[in-house]
Amino acid sequence: MSSSKPILYSYFRSSCTWRVRIVLAHKGIDYENNPVNLLKQEQVGDEFKKVNPMGQIPSLVIGNQTLSQSMSIMEYLEEVYPDKPMLPKDPLSRAKVREICEIIASGIQPLQNLSVLKKIGDEKKMEWAQFHINKGFIALEETLSKSAGKYCVGDEVSLADCCLVPQVYNANRFQVDLVPFPTIVRINESLSSLEAFKAAHPSNQPDCPEDLK
Amino acid sequence: MSSSKPILYSYFRSSCTWRVRIVLAHKGIDYENNPVNLLKQEQVGDEFKKVNPMGQIPSLVIGNQTLSQSMSIMEYLEEVYPDKPMLPKDPLSRAKVREICEIIASGIQPLQNLSVLKKIGDEKKMEWAQFHINKGFIALEETLSKSAGKYCVGDEVSLADCCLVPQVYNANRFQVDLVPFPTIVRINESLSSLEAFKAAHPSNQPDCPEDLK
Repeated sequence: MSSSKPILYSYFRSSCTWRVRIVLAHKGIDYENNPVNLLKQEQVGDEFKKVNPMGQIPSLVIGNQTLSQSMSIMEYLEEVYPDKPMLPKDPLSRAKVREICEIIASGIQPLQNLSVLKKIGDEKKMEWAQFHINKGFIALEETLSKSAGKYCVGDEVSLADCCLVPQVYNANRFQVDLVPFPTIVRINESLSSLEAFKAAHPSNQPDCPEDLK
Repeated sequence: MSSSKPILYSYFRSSCTWRVRIVLAHKGIDYENNPVNLLKQEQVGDEFKKVNPMGQIPSLVIGNQTLSQSMSIMEYLEEVYPDKPMLPKDPLSRAKVREICEIIASGIQPLQNLSVLKKIGDEKKMEWAQFHINKGFIALEETLSKSAGKYCVGDEVSLADCCLVPQVYNANRFQVDLVPFPTIVRINESLSSLEAFKAAHPSNQPDCPEDLK
């Protein structure tokens, strides 16, 4: 591992970047935050393309390596910075954490991200996002009702929690009724009071516009 | 770990189940294959709901535990059956394998699965699936052009390869032009000749209809 600080290329409201910020904050990893303005299309600009030719955030640059894709980056950080673990020790509990991550990261978020909603079109995008978040939250609520303690899996913060909070934020943005999901709401509230989750929140990022703080 | 055989609840053409079948075959894990007919809605029937109340395949039952979500199951199998590893040893290479998995499992497959296409509707579903597979394959081809040896990452079969082959099969089903993706095509061909990949292919499953064999 290089001794230089990791550099996170991020956007304050990108939920995938937000997941990685939580891991970095939870583990107390010192990093440089380098915002990329998606609204100004900076992710496909020449400068950022030198860092990541795919034009994707989050990108985490460690030494001369660029890591992409949020879950892959989170697993990498867990392996290379094992202190304050975010995966349990026993394989079945690890599988449960990853299952919850996947319900969100493959089952919900990809269906309501910016580029998909753009293709769906302004007229239908609200109904589309609500439908898919609601459907995913039904599965998530059922899973969490069995796995949760204080947090998604038992009483320790895990990678699953890093996926949950940004997804609940998106559900609120799309005005999804959260009343049918009491476990999701309860865990989200517990997590939101933790320092790492506060530090990683979009409103605490340097590129968050003043009117959204 | 229980001494009883794992039971895989599967559907021959489900690409997420197919990924898990490849891991099981590659590692030589003896398992019972229990087909669930999605076309007959058996996944939401009373019998299967006793196994998995969420009605999702793949489900892998080990002892009295039911595991869900393909990537989570694959990581579990890698941890519990470490022989014939499907993740490299060094963290950066592991991150690359997981990055490729995620490009497919979060970036492509969720946008072209059965339930999403049903919502898109018969008239538009072909264009929709082609658009998203093509877009994902552009990213995938760029990534693989740097990481690949014989297979997705170097010359060893990895979890990334388990995701690639079912996705190429889907691309063909949706008549995506693969000419712009020579690396994807080359790796898919190499993998298809391996015994584990042959054994896991939909046409070799007990629930594959005769006319598709």
